[in-house]
Amino acid sequence: MSMQNNFTFIIMGATGDLAQKKLFPAIHRLISKNKIGKNFSVVGIGRKDFTKEKFAELVKKNIKGNESTLKILEERLYYHKLNFDTKQGYKELGSFLNFTELKHKTKKNRLFYLATLPRHFKSIAQNLRKHGLVKRKGNWSRVVFEKPFGSDEKTAHLLNKEIRKGFSEDQIYRIDHYLGKELVQNIGVLRSGNRLFLPLWNKENIDHIQINLLENFGVENRGNFYDQEGALKDVGQNHILQLLCLTTMEIPKSFDAKSIRNEKIKVLKAIKKISPANVVLGQYDDFTKEKGVKKNSKTETFFALKAFIENARWKGVPFYLRSGKSLGKKFASIYIQFKKPNQSIFRDQDLKSNYLIIQIQPEDGILIQLNGKMPGEKLKVMPLKMSFCHQCAFGPNTPEAYETLIYEAIVGDQSAFIRSDEIEESWKVIDQITKKKIPVQKYAKGSFGPKKAEALMKKDKREWFNKIENVVQGL
Amino acid sequence: MSMQNNFTFIIMGATGDLAQKKLFPAIHRLISKNKIGKNFSVVGIGRKDFTKEKFAELVKKNIKGNESTLKILEERLYYHKLNFDTKQGYKELGSFLNFTELKHKTKKNRLFYLATLPRHFKSIAQNLRKHGLVKRKGNWSRVVFEKPFGSDEKTAHLLNKEIRKGFSEDQIYRIDHYLGKELVQNIGVLRSGNRLFLPLWNKENIDHIQINLLENFGVENRGNFYDQEGALKDVGQNHILQLLCLTTMEIPKSFDAKSIRNEKIKVLKAIKKISPANVVLGQYDDFTKEKGVKKNSKTETFFALKAFIENARWKGVPFYLRSGKSLGKKFASIYIQFKKPNQSIFRDQDLKSNYLIIQIQPEDGILIQLNGKMPGEKLKVMPLKMSFCHQCAFGPNTPEAYETLIYEAIVGDQSAFIRSDEIEESWKVIDQITKKKIPVQKYAKGSFGPKKAEALMKKDKREWFNKIENVVQGL
Repeated sequence: MSMQNNFTFIIMGATGDLAQKKLFPAIHRLISKNKIGKNFSVVGIGRKDFTKEKFAELVKKNIKGNESTLKILEERLYYHKLNFDTKQGYKELGSFLNFTELKHKTKKNRLFYLATLPRHFKSIAQNLRKHGLVKRKGNWSRVVFEKPFGSDEKTAHLLNKEIRKGFSEDQIYRIDHYLGKELVQNIGVLRSGNRLFLPLWNKENIDHIQINLLENFGVENRGNFYDQEGALKDVGQNHILQLLCLTTMEIPKSFDAKSIRNEKIKVLKAIKKISPANVVLGQYDDFTKEKGVKKNSKTETFFALKAFIENARWKGVPFYLRSGKSLGKKFASIYIQFKKPNQSIFRDQDLKSNYLIIQIQPEDGILIQLNGKMPGEKLKVMPLKMSFCHQCAFGPNTPEAYETLIYEAIVGDQSAFIRSDEIEESWKVIDQITKKKIPVQKYAKGSFGPKKAEALMKKDKREWFNKIENVVQGL
Repeated sequence: MSMQNNFTFIIMGATGDLAQKKLFPAIHRLISKNKIGKNFSVVGIGRKDFTKEKFAELVKKNIKGNESTLKILEERLYYHKLNFDTKQGYKELGSFLNFTELKHKTKKNRLFYLATLPRHFKSIAQNLRKHGLVKRKGNWSRVVFEKPFGSDEKTAHLLNKEIRKGFSEDQIYRIDHYLGKELVQNIGVLRSGNRLFLPLWNKENIDHIQINLLENFGVENRGNFYDQEGALKDVGQNHILQLLCLTTMEIPKSFDAKSIRNEKIKVLKAIKKISPANVVLGQYDDFTKEKGVKKNSKTETFFALKAFIENARWKGVPFYLRSGKSLGKKFASIYIQFKKPNQSIFRDQDLKSNYLIIQIQPEDGILIQLNGKMPGEKLKVMPLKMSFCHQCAFGPNTPEAYETLIYEAIVGDQSAFIRSDEIEESWKVIDQITKKKIPVQKYAKGSFGPKKAEALMKKDKREWFNKIENVVQGL
């Protein structure tokens, strides 16, 4: 990684949770790791009143760092008040950026980060364009859009259309922070850089794949927002479909953004229509009593579904996708179960299947379960595990997802951001489910969702993978 | 494993190192683990004078155990004096066995273990037969032969011929204690029980395989014997070729002795004639000053060679076999290097090859090296390791090789013993090398053998695997 200089990082919605807890700390980590030089500034933008000093105080609350790196940030940190939906403030913002750019000897490269509510996306994009904030000859301007990007295919399409009036696709960075996670960024390398996996990654050798993103907490203070979305839109359309794409796409001919995104979109288009019989939706008990949630809400806080990818590599292999809130465990992993070897040679012992886990949360790591001989027992087969623990090998200094993605946006690497066609295709997959009005089953908090989710697996003679693997020890 | 009863274990050469250090302790371990009941006895046979009591004292010196298990052994432990090469003693031995069998209510099942010098094998076998010690209607008699079995194909063939006059092949147990080691017994299960390995085990995916059996000590007190043998005969003909067979044979249709041995012999027969240009022999400095070694000895204490197996699975894959004494490290492992994936996608970084290690010594375990992404560095690839540590998972109570093999001989399982045709074929492989009179190069103690051994690899653009992997941690 080379050190980046000469840019202004403009955060819209700078007093919000995301900016405060993720974005400013990420910038500080980039400073600490010498990934950005000193010719830059960070401009926080919000509707509240703040002095430069008061704002710096707020930002520093969420940052652990030494005096010198904090000072580098503070000297380059500004606050600018703006009502996102009115026109007048934007002209002033333009002058303000001219001032900071002169002062900090940055060039006129601008990275706008829209960490606001999604309903402001359109007007912010329009205003930035109208007031000439984004077109600077010989310099770059980029806009990062937080999720959710639209709420179905139609709204995403309209938003894309609107945004692209003022920005070309290579200026648009639709974020899914899962794509910034180390283990997720590792999927491509693991798949394509290992002869031990490459020839096995297909329907001939893989029995099925599960992608699980389980949470053991409820909606917390997001009740109002979440009630309008539900689990499918909140994590299905983005994190889970993205993990599915990275796990199943053809190895691109190069790891540039275009090649990767071309392969991902092929997967999304190849997902077979999902039958309602293969979808289970759930809502945890007392969800309707949560703050901000409608009393008669039918919003799903859980989904489990079976999908198929209709192409040569994956035809007939089931993909089980599951996510939910207030479940028995909190973890996110990709579970790849291989077909069983011929058991007759082992006198028909019931061999366990080999599997590979790419565990994203809580501990990053990969784990393989193999079969070996039980010591002292001739031909008795038992599973044995081998693991790679990310943190054990690399220490706690692994970059955080937002840190990685902000850096990539500064560098201009779009490979971990979502292209317009991709976002629309992924909505299409989700829309076909949500439009079916599948009944929502109640489930107990601390369980693994409605009983029907178990049944979905059982009828295929398979089981949900409910384990947090001990990637540290493997045992 | 079921508990075995009703047998007499007769050890010829009972005061020797092997019997004292390995065989009696193995029997004691089988008692401790309840693998043998109480209807058995152990009869030590040697040429020296011992009372029952004095012999028990000797045996107990090498055994760590509690009072009760030691008592079980001691009550069933006998000593019988015999000059192996004279006829008269054998008749007495017959009466003595009748006595112990009556006393301990064992049946007339007899396991003879020839832990003597090899030159006694023939006459012991003849005498056991002549004096009716081995044919007992409705009961079994088996004979275990320690290695070396013959000193070339011709002598092995003659010995086989002689022995088979009195014993059928299913009574003959030619031992190679490497085949009793847990990790070696595991090879078959690892290969055939894992979908993660099965499709990869061939010339399409494997670049080359190394079998290394390195020792960091000299001939010690075996100078006289070793000087007549050399490394090729001492470990090449047996341990190394056996490991090669187990690693490369076709998966047998069942894990019974016949099927396994049929597959092993096919490998031995398919080994291509080894060119002298692919063989390096070495002798460590000052070998000729060792006790018992001839001053002008040309015996090799080191060999490194490249072999090919001419069949559909392995055509063109080189197998590098190496062993030696007084080297820089002490370990035994099978190193399987996979072909590299396409590197162009990684902008021609020099990717390391995936490899799988089956480590037999010092610590049992398996280890896989994969490629992963370097944290914080987009697309920079680095190796990462995953390991399975046998002892970590199963504790220190893993059976010792002799314990396993003695038990298997009692049970009548010949799968880990060498068949007559196998032993002759393996000698044939070694004979063709030894008959070439390849010059022996000197090498420094503590090195990895003669420089020519390095050159053998270098010309193939490969490297000897000189690592003891940390199977405990994998890092």
